Amino acid sequence: MPSRLKLIVAYDGRPFSGWQSQPNGNGIQDYLENAFERICSERIRVHGAGRTDAGVHAIAQCAHADLPARRYAAERWLSALNGVLPQEIRVMRTRFVPDSFHARFSAKGKTYRYRIWNGEVLPPLENGRAWHIRDPLDCALMATAANSFLGRHNFHSFAANRGAPAADTIRTICRVRFQKSGSRLVIEFEGDGFLYKMVRMMVGTLAQIALGKASPREIQSRLRPAGEHLFHARSVAPAAGLFLIRVRY
Amino acid sequence: MPSRLKLIVAYDGRPFSGWQSQPNGNGIQDYLENAFERICSERIRVHGAGRTDAGVHAIAQCAHADLPARRYAAERWLSALNGVLPQEIRVMRTRFVPDSFHARFSAKGKTYRYRIWNGEVLPPLENGRAWHIRDPLDCALMATAANSFLGRHNFHSFAANRGAPAADTIRTICRVRFQKSGSRLVIEFEGDGFLYKMVRMMVGTLAQIALGKASPREIQSRLRPAGEHLFHARSVAPAAGLFLIRVRY
Repeated sequence: MPSRLKLIVAYDGRPFSGWQSQPNGNGIQDYLENAFERICSERIRVHGAGRTDAGVHAIAQCAHADLPARRYAAERWLSALNGVLPQEIRVMRTRFVPDSFHARFSAKGKTYRYRIWNGEVLPPLENGRAWHIRDPLDCALMATAANSFLGRHNFHSFAANRGAPAADTIRTICRVRFQKSGSRLVIEFEGDGFLYKMVRMMVGTLAQIALGKASPREIQSRLRPAGEHLFHARSVAPAAGLFLIRVRY
Repeated sequence: MPSRLKLIVAYDGRPFSGWQSQPNGNGIQDYLENAFERICSERIRVHGAGRTDAGVHAIAQCAHADLPARRYAAERWLSALNGVLPQEIRVMRTRFVPDSFHARFSAKGKTYRYRIWNGEVLPPLENGRAWHIRDPLDCALMATAANSFLGRHNFHSFAANRGAPAADTIRTICRVRFQKSGSRLVIEFEGDGFLYKMVRMMVGTLAQIALGKASPREIQSRLRPAGEHLFHARSVAPAAGLFLIRVRY
């Protein structure tokens, strides 16, 4: 009887080509599947809650894998996996779950954090972990604009085109948190799901607004049903500032 | 007329052999002096407030350099230096100061931060930025013990031997801050000065106490005038958790 193991995975996104398995083997999924293979001498598929792009970090990505048999306790899988994974990928927690649990299909929501450094010089310890914006941002305006993403909307124009039909682009953002501490800005979005590059396009637009290059009305206009709004140039915030911090089940 | 430039320097300590100039050229001081040479075609000595060891980070190390002439405004020096420095070293601020200012001899105090991750697995984004301690720490005991460093003491037995006479090992710690947030512990020490490896030996001893391997009385006993205390095995916390966060003038 196969046993389903749930994994909470953290990674520094920098050295990898994103979550998804890649032909070059540099996806985080590849490293996890290789780790299972080294332990079990068997290829095991790892299912993630969602993909993260190259350079995007995770504090708590979620995944599951069906193990051939319940050979080890969940804690032993944790240490065995960490023993063979590169140190930029760590399995933070493991536990056995019922077969009805699916990392992707059971997910009820996700929280993403985006970090911006708004100052002349990016401190070296922020390299690869924040978007460096030198020009002054209107943070009050940015915070207000961020709140206009709250609610159920058609995010079609905040998604990179992967050919998804417009009907699949309805998402609900239930929480927006904006924090400023000196030069450091942190924006968090919690929602039932996020489209491809959606958070980076939302933050890109917020930055345009905070730089005075776009109107705060830009967001409402782009959230109207597809076809009604004008085409606007899209701004995508860099991957380095993005962190998947929680998957809710 | 030479002009004295004060620099606030931040660095990720990992790739470097510490602050001090090295025969292999891998000291942070070497990179700064090379940067000045590339800009001025002249060798300029950079004086730091103090040395940091290999792997130790700085949020705000302080330094000064005597420039051949006030050719550029301070802000231009900032961007010129950052233009040639490796991205792991950044000059955060620059300003011209009177010749009476000396980065080392004018310093009135320093603040160091030490970070510990107390949990089963070290998150990848903490690599090289924290001391990973798996076994549970008694944090209440650790916080109390940390406060026993407060005041004016002979720190002789909390210094790596560099042949300094005992008379030079009196230091005053004026502030200790202990913070715990989940698995993350942060201890800050502010003092009029710190001996070689002093913070790392203080934190090493605190960890021994919090692990139940040493008595909290260990600290008071070791702070007694040299000769009166017994010799104890010394524990030095790793460089990776240490950050120089401020130099006070």
